[in-house]
Amino acid sequence: MSIKAVVFDAYGTLYDIQSVAEITEDAFPGYGELITQVWRIKQLEYTWLRSLMRRYQDFAVVTRDSLTYTLRMLGLAYEDDAFERIIDKYLHLDLYPDATAALVALKPRQLAILSNGSPDMLNALVRNSGLDALLDATISVDDKKIFKPSPEAYELIDEMLGTRPSEVLFVSSNPWDAAGAKSFGLKVAWIERVTPEAMALACVENEVVAPLTMFRAIRTQMDELGFAPDHRIRALSELPGIA
Amino acid sequence: MSIKAVVFDAYGTLYDIQSVAEITEDAFPGYGELITQVWRIKQLEYTWLRSLMRRYQDFAVVTRDSLTYTLRMLGLAYEDDAFERIIDKYLHLDLYPDATAALVALKPRQLAILSNGSPDMLNALVRNSGLDALLDATISVDDKKIFKPSPEAYELIDEMLGTRPSEVLFVSSNPWDAAGAKSFGLKVAWIERVTPEAMALACVENEVVAPLTMFRAIRTQMDELGFAPDHRIRALSELPGIA
Repeated sequence: MSIKAVVFDAYGTLYDIQSVAEITEDAFPGYGELITQVWRIKQLEYTWLRSLMRRYQDFAVVTRDSLTYTLRMLGLAYEDDAFERIIDKYLHLDLYPDATAALVALKPRQLAILSNGSPDMLNALVRNSGLDALLDATISVDDKKIFKPSPEAYELIDEMLGTRPSEVLFVSSNPWDAAGAKSFGLKVAWIERVTPEAMALACVENEVVAPLTMFRAIRTQMDELGFAPDHRIRALSELPGIA
Repeated sequence: MSIKAVVFDAYGTLYDIQSVAEITEDAFPGYGELITQVWRIKQLEYTWLRSLMRRYQDFAVVTRDSLTYTLRMLGLAYEDDAFERIIDKYLHLDLYPDATAALVALKPRQLAILSNGSPDMLNALVRNSGLDALLDATISVDDKKIFKPSPEAYELIDEMLGTRPSEVLFVSSNPWDAAGAKSFGLKVAWIERVTPEAMALACVENEVVAPLTMFRAIRTQMDELGFAPDHRIRALSELPGIA
């Protein structure tokens, strides 16, 4: 067994970030899915931009700032408590349905999360979803004050678990994260939850482009960054077959 | 006169990157504007991601890779020469109509471009548009092998022009670039070419969201990165009044 540890990205990989759409729809009827997509785009942009600017603020700050941007962009007025209710959902995201069973099946390997999330956010999320009983470590990039895909972030795996990069299978559904982990030297499984054929079809239906599909499409296809994952899988349930 | 140099971002600030839409529409009828928007989103993402991954490749490579992503995402088959015709347009982008007159009016201050573009791309663009006669320097981040908004990129201004940051007015229409320049310590004029009111209105018309408007909206509003520009202007023609 050459893989000694399986390390997961959190947001979008174990936890379904689309599950905030119900709360945003409740707070802003008709805008729920739109807010969810734009928010995620800006949230990621801000992690990369702040890292490059050397102006790190933790993921809780970035998540709030990107939601502020999104609501302002859409011209939506809001009360503080609507804002807080949406933010709070980030501590109670839904697990993907196959997450718990996959983790159980991957034992006795070391299991961990490596996430952009702040320690407070991740600890609440892991506890609220019951994964604390299965994970050996919940690692936040906050220790390095820089976000993925910078190499310093992936270094934390070895530092925390005592593994070498070649002994680690890193699992992410985020193409840029899979590319960054591979560039760093980890073994990588990329979860491709949407097939290219389905996405290309959905992008242009009857000559009318669905904007929400388009927003998703800019993050579902493997990126052209010069690094291909070792494994392409469709669901977490495929992991026991490759690790 | 405290401002000794006025330094411009190139793509989107002096040069209209939307002007590729005509070529992309010609190559892929019905998809011109869509390709233009998605291409730009991925082009910028790749500059930030490669910088963070320490996998710099110059802007010519990133521009090709992001176009490849875009066409693949849309499921569009293409011949090499269609691809090359689109790429070639990046060397012949249209100037904004008020660019030349603004530069002339800003003399005798030092005038320069600081751009993510590769030296070859920038030199061709400046020559093809006739700005070579007006600019004192065309500075590429390629000298530092990292893209904006990293501080190293903005350091090039002082190194090339012999100015101090407080003597430089940096001009960009890109919100993240304006924030990055301000974070570095330059004086900054941000060109807000679309008003927030117009954008919020355009985003949601009759409960139907226009996808192309949405794609533009994620880059036209000032970002929530903790740095506000010194000046907000609507056009290059306002610069002589503030510099």
